[in-house]
Amino acid sequence: MGKTVFMPIILDEQNAVSITELLNSIKSDGINWSLKTNCKLDNILIRGISSLSSASFYDVSFFINNKYRKDLLSSNAGVVIVHENLYTEQINRDLKKIKCFIVSDNPYLLYSKIATWFDKIKSSGNDNLSYIDSSSHISPTADIAEGVRIGPFCVIGSNVKIGEGSIIEASSIISSGSIIGKNCKLFPRVTLYKDVLIGDNNILHTGVVLGADGFGYAIDKRNSNVSWSKIPQLGSVIIGNNVEIGANTTVDRGSLDNTLIENGVKIDNQVMIGHNVSIGEHTAIAACVGIAGSTFIGKRCTIGGAAMISGHLHISDDVHISGGTTIISNIIKSGKYTGIYPFSRHIEWQRNAPVISHLANLRRKIKFS
Amino acid sequence: MGKTVFMPIILDEQNAVSITELLNSIKSDGINWSLKTNCKLDNILIRGISSLSSASFYDVSFFINNKYRKDLLSSNAGVVIVHENLYTEQINRDLKKIKCFIVSDNPYLLYSKIATWFDKIKSSGNDNLSYIDSSSHISPTADIAEGVRIGPFCVIGSNVKIGEGSIIEASSIISSGSIIGKNCKLFPRVTLYKDVLIGDNNILHTGVVLGADGFGYAIDKRNSNVSWSKIPQLGSVIIGNNVEIGANTTVDRGSLDNTLIENGVKIDNQVMIGHNVSIGEHTAIAACVGIAGSTFIGKRCTIGGAAMISGHLHISDDVHISGGTTIISNIIKSGKYTGIYPFSRHIEWQRNAPVISHLANLRRKIKFS
Amino acid sequence: MGKTVFMPIILDEQNAVSITELLNSIKSDGINWSLKTNCKLDNILIRGISSLSSASFYDVSFFINNKYRKDLLSSNAGVVIVHENLYTEQINRDLKKIKCFIVSDNPYLLYSKIATWFDKIKSSGNDNLSYIDSSSHISPTADIAEGVRIGPFCVIGSNVKIGEGSIIEASSIISSGSIIGKNCKLFPRVTLYKDVLIGDNNILHTGVVLGADGFGYAIDKRNSNVSWSKIPQLGSVIIGNNVEIGANTTVDRGSLDNTLIENGVKIDNQVMIGHNVSIGEHTAIAACVGIAGSTFIGKRCTIGGAAMISGHLHISDDVHISGGTTIISNIIKSGKYTGIYPFSRHIEWQRNAPVISHLANLRRKIKFS
Repeated sequence: MGKTVFMPIILDEQNAVSITELLNSIKSDGINWSLKTNCKLDNILIRGISSLSSASFYDVSFFINNKYRKDLLSSNAGVVIVHENLYTEQINRDLKKIKCFIVSDNPYLLYSKIATWFDKIKSSGNDNLSYIDSSSHISPTADIAEGVRIGPFCVIGSNVKIGEGSIIEASSIISSGSIIGKNCKLFPRVTLYKDVLIGDNNILHTGVVLGADGFGYAIDKRNSNVSWSKIPQLGSVIIGNNVEIGANTTVDRGSLDNTLIENGVKIDNQVMIGHNVSIGEHTAIAACVGIAGSTFIGKRCTIGGAAMISGHLHISDDVHISGGTTIISNIIKSGKYTGIYPFSRHIEWQRNAPVISHLANLRRKIKFS
Repeated sequence: MGKTVFMPIILDEQNAVSITELLNSIKSDGINWSLKTNCKLDNILIRGISSLSSASFYDVSFFINNKYRKDLLSSNAGVVIVHENLYTEQINRDLKKIKCFIVSDNPYLLYSKIATWFDKIKSSGNDNLSYIDSSSHISPTADIAEGVRIGPFCVIGSNVKIGEGSIIEASSIISSGSIIGKNCKLFPRVTLYKDVLIGDNNILHTGVVLGADGFGYAIDKRNSNVSWSKIPQLGSVIIGNNVEIGANTTVDRGSLDNTLIENGVKIDNQVMIGHNVSIGEHTAIAACVGIAGSTFIGKRCTIGGAAMISGHLHISDDVHISGGTTIISNIIKSGKYTGIYPFSRHIEWQRNAPVISHLANLRRKIKFS
Repeated sequence: MGKTVFMPIILDEQNAVSITELLNSIKSDGINWSLKTNCKLDNILIRGISSLSSASFYDVSFFINNKYRKDLLSSNAGVVIVHENLYTEQINRDLKKIKCFIVSDNPYLLYSKIATWFDKIKSSGNDNLSYIDSSSHISPTADIAEGVRIGPFCVIGSNVKIGEGSIIEASSIISSGSIIGKNCKLFPRVTLYKDVLIGDNNILHTGVVLGADGFGYAIDKRNSNVSWSKIPQLGSVIIGNNVEIGANTTVDRGSLDNTLIENGVKIDNQVMIGHNVSIGEHTAIAACVGIAGSTFIGKRCTIGGAAMISGHLHISDDVHISGGTTIISNIIKSGKYTGIYPFSRHIEWQRNAPVISHLANLRRKIKFS
């Protein structure tokens, strides 16, 4: 399986574009690049984009990670975008199959621009929503801008506002008082609880839940009984512009103030963001991360998959947390932080792990020796 | 962003209540509190509830964590509930802006009661469900009590019972044979598989899945082939009263016996509870926790976010597990348990972590030195 | 609670089967087993299957884990399947209540076969879907095989294909171009994004999302501004046959190539599989696992709950990763791998954990001593 399934070439033969046409069609301002080729540029025809190992003669591909050198050597790609640090004239000489290299200081960004160009062509054939589906329940007090498209089985509550160009796919629920900006895309089955505010150009994937109650209870001990008294969550969730939130991610509403996600934040699948958390601009959060209540996270941070961050902490700007790391105190200085127990063969772990429980004693012995 | 968004004052001017009216309206039995003020009590008018930093002159706020002392000092709140241990006459003298302190032995519980009072007022204006939506599919054999409200696009299977006062919001699916008690609230898109039993006064948030198949397979090795033979999950899920379950949390059905969640248990978002787990009364489980199959957890435990508990374990009553901790053996004694690899700057982690793999050897050297 | 709730006996008195009838009805080829009893086989009547502690005189139960010895000793089960290593003649003599032991080299597999037999009987009474519900929206270009059943409020996009015998339960969304093989069962509220391919005999549980966008952005630094440029995810998800995927699990589509899940893979709840991951045949993945992008996992692996695997790694065949372990480098050799910080009483953790940050120094001291 797998090996035999290739992505289709996206353009058919008569619609192939030359590499120069392609590069002129994309917005590459701010990216430095140059072409290295022995061919006439008009003869380098492109019909798709592909990984090194799957690429055909008519595909653009990219090489930015030395781990994939083997794939480069055996690749059938016609054109390869390559990082200037990985490119040498040697490569050009050795890899005769590859008609052309595009050497760049930001090959990944260049690739993203080319992929976006192909994605638009590919998507143009889809059965896109073109209207508001009559099966959906839309409150008469909802304010839906011109051109908004709403799929089947949606529920749009009272006083909801949805801005121009936004698309709400099937089975989404936008509860009363929520506001969605312009040009947002909600994939099927997104849920907004009441009074959630999201800005423009946001992408929310299936299963996203914004504004569920934060986890707040006051302990009630009386006559030796213990129980939990629910604290109503009176705040909401406010999300800026250009934010993307992955499948089955949840962002809880604030208890009194709001949970805030600022412009340009990118959040992967199955992330959990607790009540009253604040996340600064352009921070990126990988899958399975949990951020407990009232924690403040600065701008331009990256948080690796499955990292867990305790509540009531302050994480400064430009902090990079490795995947799998548990953060239990403030981080004041920018930089990279890690805390992962190194894995080993189980039998070695069985020998070494119990020593952890005696480290303080061991240290004392050493100090006195 | 964020900073400029304040929660609205909830009562308008003519509906403001005096602090005495407010305190008389809530059920504060069992909580000790006293008022410290130089003002006439009838002149202390309240219109809302807010955090220290967002509060206005007409808001009640609370101060229970010394971390937020700075917020207290700059707060515009009219009234502040404060823990008796944090209150001194000094505070009263210094903070002249604050008209009144409510000094209590359980300020958080008192706050929860006041917040509940405001929540009821705030919610009364919502477009609440008032009937069974005609778009929902309800089996003729379902037994729906008087006054039950069901939102659009729900599916209610055969022989389902739903008790008085329960609310099932949009797009929820209650499969055949399931029973829901009285006064439950299911937010949109909750799914109960067949034969799930839940008691009274439960709150289930969006994306909750109760009763999906537990993860059970018997290995089938034959002629050097290995495959997995699915074990049907013949048990179910039984949930008591006063339980709250957070968004996108899943509780699997038992393989033979049932998965049990007892009265008063509180579960946050994205928690996973495996088949045949049993969770005792008033245990609270924070987000992203996983509890593997057949583990028994006692009463009044707290489990911190992203803690992971192996299968077939026995955790006693009154055990408190720190967030991020992995539990792989029974816990017999009550108390607090932790096991988190301490994070550090990445460069330090790179130096220290590899030593873990040699700890047993190091210990031997020390013992013989 | 709990203790008083027993599973019903599945067959009523007149439909009880003898143990020989039962064993003849199931497919137990490849499993060695023998009966140990002093009773006449025709007199051993069976009406259900149950755990040791809940079993009645008419139930089959099983004993495969010495942890549950106490349950065996007090069990009321009529028949107990037992592993040949745990069975002695002594047991037969001592446990007179138990009419019959079935001694086997694979008792768990035998139990799974018997449980399946009972499950079929139990399920036959359910209100099963028998047609395509008229409330669902089905594209005129969708190709739905004979006998396919589709529940209410589903959305089936253009050019979708669904094979014979497949069941799509309520509120599922199958986006345009997706293909579902034969005899698949989709529980309610499964979502397939466009162009997802799944084979035959697959089971997908509620909340599963296949084919959401992978988490891919190119960093765009310009004039000291940093932002993220979305990389379109042009690949898809391809799933083989006999795969089961648990509730609220997400599998992202590939960026250029496809994300691949091969035949016989079993995946539990709330697992996150990143873009371009490849998972080999008959690998089993427990709940809350995260696998980051482009990682390759071999055949017949087992991955314990909440294990986290970094991106771009290669994990060989027959690797077994313990729950809670973080994998950050390739694993070349088969075998068992673990990396869990051992938990302890909090007060001990507070003493020992800080030493971790000085391990490199400690080692140096010891070497020089």
